[in-house]
Amino acid sequence: MAQKSSIPKGTRDFSPMEMVRRNYIFDTIKEVFQKYGYLPIETPAMENLNTLLGKYGEEGDRLLFKVLNSGDFLKKIRNSDLEEGNAARTATKISEKGLRYDLTVPFARYVVQHRNDISFPFKRYQIQPVWRADRPQKGRYREFYQCDIDVIGSNSLFNETELIRVIDEVFSKLGINISIKLNNRKILSGIATVINAPEKLTDITTAIDKLDKIGLEKVYAELEAKGIEKEKIDILNPIITLEGSNTNKLKTLKSIFKENEEGSKGVEELETVLNNLEDIDIKANIEIDQALARGLNYYTGAIIEVKADDISIGSICGGGRYDNLTGIFGMPGISGVGVSFGADRIYDVLEETNSFPAQTESTSKIMITNFGDKEALFALKVLVELHKQDIKAELYPDNTKIQKQMKYANNKSIPYVLMMGEEEIKTGIYTLKNMETGAQNKLKLSQIINLLNA
Amino acid sequence: MAQKSSIPKGTRDFSPMEMVRRNYIFDTIKEVFQKYGYLPIETPAMENLNTLLGKYGEEGDRLLFKVLNSGDFLKKIRNSDLEEGNAARTATKISEKGLRYDLTVPFARYVVQHRNDISFPFKRYQIQPVWRADRPQKGRYREFYQCDIDVIGSNSLFNETELIRVIDEVFSKLGINISIKLNNRKILSGIATVINAPEKLTDITTAIDKLDKIGLEKVYAELEAKGIEKEKIDILNPIITLEGSNTNKLKTLKSIFKENEEGSKGVEELETVLNNLEDIDIKANIEIDQALARGLNYYTGAIIEVKADDISIGSICGGGRYDNLTGIFGMPGISGVGVSFGADRIYDVLEETNSFPAQTESTSKIMITNFGDKEALFALKVLVELHKQDIKAELYPDNTKIQKQMKYANNKSIPYVLMMGEEEIKTGIYTLKNMETGAQNKLKLSQIINLLNA
Repeated sequence: MAQKSSIPKGTRDFSPMEMVRRNYIFDTIKEVFQKYGYLPIETPAMENLNTLLGKYGEEGDRLLFKVLNSGDFLKKIRNSDLEEGNAARTATKISEKGLRYDLTVPFARYVVQHRNDISFPFKRYQIQPVWRADRPQKGRYREFYQCDIDVIGSNSLFNETELIRVIDEVFSKLGINISIKLNNRKILSGIATVINAPEKLTDITTAIDKLDKIGLEKVYAELEAKGIEKEKIDILNPIITLEGSNTNKLKTLKSIFKENEEGSKGVEELETVLNNLEDIDIKANIEIDQALARGLNYYTGAIIEVKADDISIGSICGGGRYDNLTGIFGMPGISGVGVSFGADRIYDVLEETNSFPAQTESTSKIMITNFGDKEALFALKVLVELHKQDIKAELYPDNTKIQKQMKYANNKSIPYVLMMGEEEIKTGIYTLKNMETGAQNKLKLSQIINLLNA
Repeated sequence: MAQKSSIPKGTRDFSPMEMVRRNYIFDTIKEVFQKYGYLPIETPAMENLNTLLGKYGEEGDRLLFKVLNSGDFLKKIRNSDLEEGNAARTATKISEKGLRYDLTVPFARYVVQHRNDISFPFKRYQIQPVWRADRPQKGRYREFYQCDIDVIGSNSLFNETELIRVIDEVFSKLGINISIKLNNRKILSGIATVINAPEKLTDITTAIDKLDKIGLEKVYAELEAKGIEKEKIDILNPIITLEGSNTNKLKTLKSIFKENEEGSKGVEELETVLNNLEDIDIKANIEIDQALARGLNYYTGAIIEVKADDISIGSICGGGRYDNLTGIFGMPGISGVGVSFGADRIYDVLEETNSFPAQTESTSKIMITNFGDKEALFALKVLVELHKQDIKAELYPDNTKIQKQMKYANNKSIPYVLMMGEEEIKTGIYTLKNMETGAQNKLKLSQIINLLNA
């Protein structure tokens, strides 16, 4: 009996039409990355488990896909392992490789391993799939691509400025209106110091972030519920209600952090990045968001997040500066800054806003019909002429009903069909059908080439 | 203590320079594929094990990378499994997914699974990594890319003709001189029938293939050693010694198969493919090779193999026609034909023949120096102007020693460096250094843009 054909849950096949659209996104991103001097690297799908374990927390360790050792792995399992029933521990006996969980840890491993061959500052991008044994749900997959861009080995804030320019150009090229939210980890640290409660920072930022939705009173209530004293909340008030222009926000933050060195440093960094962008034509709306806290334990400077303006879908790009990414692999003190573009969400935005280019670059511009072996052999010579002009073109390979051939061209979104019958061969005047309008024109090959090259 | 950073044996990191070169190969291949009407698909890295098992023989099953089930896999192992010690059988209890071993089986699975959405004939290409738990050695990796191009759902020999044109254009664009060897499975079947020993076919083709190296006498000896009777070998003689032009070979083969229908059909197919190519400018040397037998149990019609002329490295591309790829997934009688390009070997050929393009398209055309925050801020505006012209350009982010900045530009093969000091800012005349010649010129920005756009 034939097998049922299916793929593992949470994974996807991509059809030609989906691939053409995905490649449109990736190609646009790559083109901008390269324009700014970033070059690609690739790392293997499998990393040694000791590279991956312990880097993503306990939950992350659980979500790693582990690859069974080749050969007789059974020998490594003892009866006592079965009695004990500790799957995680036994897994390390029979599996020494795992599928990469993100591109950040492999990048850190790469930098350390190849430190002697790398010319720092190292500007790299990496576009590869990652795998997570997460419970699949709408928009969450077990295999998905990440697009990461980072500069490592430079403290200069010109890098932050550049990444904002990269973000702006990518989304501007894709035709997506965006807002870029900016914060700085040092501002968050400053807030924690001001109220003397560093352990409450997550609670505070979560509450502040809800101001728009639930109003000031409820934010206060939530902070109190989280055990923050009334008087500390009063100190926080100007931070919670911070609004207006970026200039105003910077001014308020400066006065709040008058006596706080780290907070002041954060404000200064934010201000430098914004000043660098002055007089540069940025399409995105850039706003300081003092509640932005993604990757709280990870970032040490700038924090960046991008949202689409015209559709509610969460963040479509984000990142920040980290000061010790490579430390865990024995290379401390290397600062880096980078952002990651969410290809799947960008795809959804372009689809929902109907913003994919109508006519893709990838499909054939013209298909020649097949009315029989003799006609097709002649058509092949015409096809060769079209190909010589670098025109994307194909000959329908089989001599089947013309309706079927037309349907094929239509399904592939091929805009023109060239009829190649006995009459056409005799006269050298071909019938060209415009598949969108249905119009048919009698043309010479040179005219057809001119039309397709236009 | 810091961890040692390394990757699993048989896998590779790709540096920016390697990636730029690999992308040059992939982009060239993709461009030609699309020009001929092929579109990309992608399938997941992990397939269900029941999709993969049994498709590559016993050896292949052993070489599959199996992914450990998430959650408490230990529960599935019994003491009796440990006693029995059958690792392969126990593996199926604790692993239900495997990494894809090639692109062919996933493609067959894809076609069957999406049969209702596909417009046949389906012309697709697929460029993705595959994984094999093979013993790593020079040129053999556990993770490597395959580049497959296939037409499925068409019996027309125009497809074979087209694939030869695709092969010719790909290698011509890459600047690699090639020979394309052609055979047909039906010719091989014909040979087996003529000597009445189908089970000896592999022995026969292996022996014939050695004619050039060991001479006729030793080929005879080898055939006898394999148990083929003297009189059968005499019948084989014209096939063993088949040489000269393709026309001559076809003529000899026709007379050998006068009474053999299948052999004659094979010759006829081969002749049609060659006739279709007449008057078409093909750069490759195309030759009939009656000993060509790759994938003997798999191909049913054309067999194609490509060798580089200027370097001895084995086949760099190959494939053929198969009549029942999707049968195992419940969709019989669909004929397809395709070839696979060996990216790693193509890389080696280009490297050994020094044929990679000298100036890549990917690196920045110009780097602007950083002589301090004030100068860099001015440089940033100049950078913006260059970017507006779509010139690949970067600003060195840190104010470090000029030697270090120059070394960076040099390591990244950036051809020009723009000096941006106080004097330059004042006059608007910049010093442009040609990194190859060392020449320095004083130019206005508009002149620099003209030079870089030239």
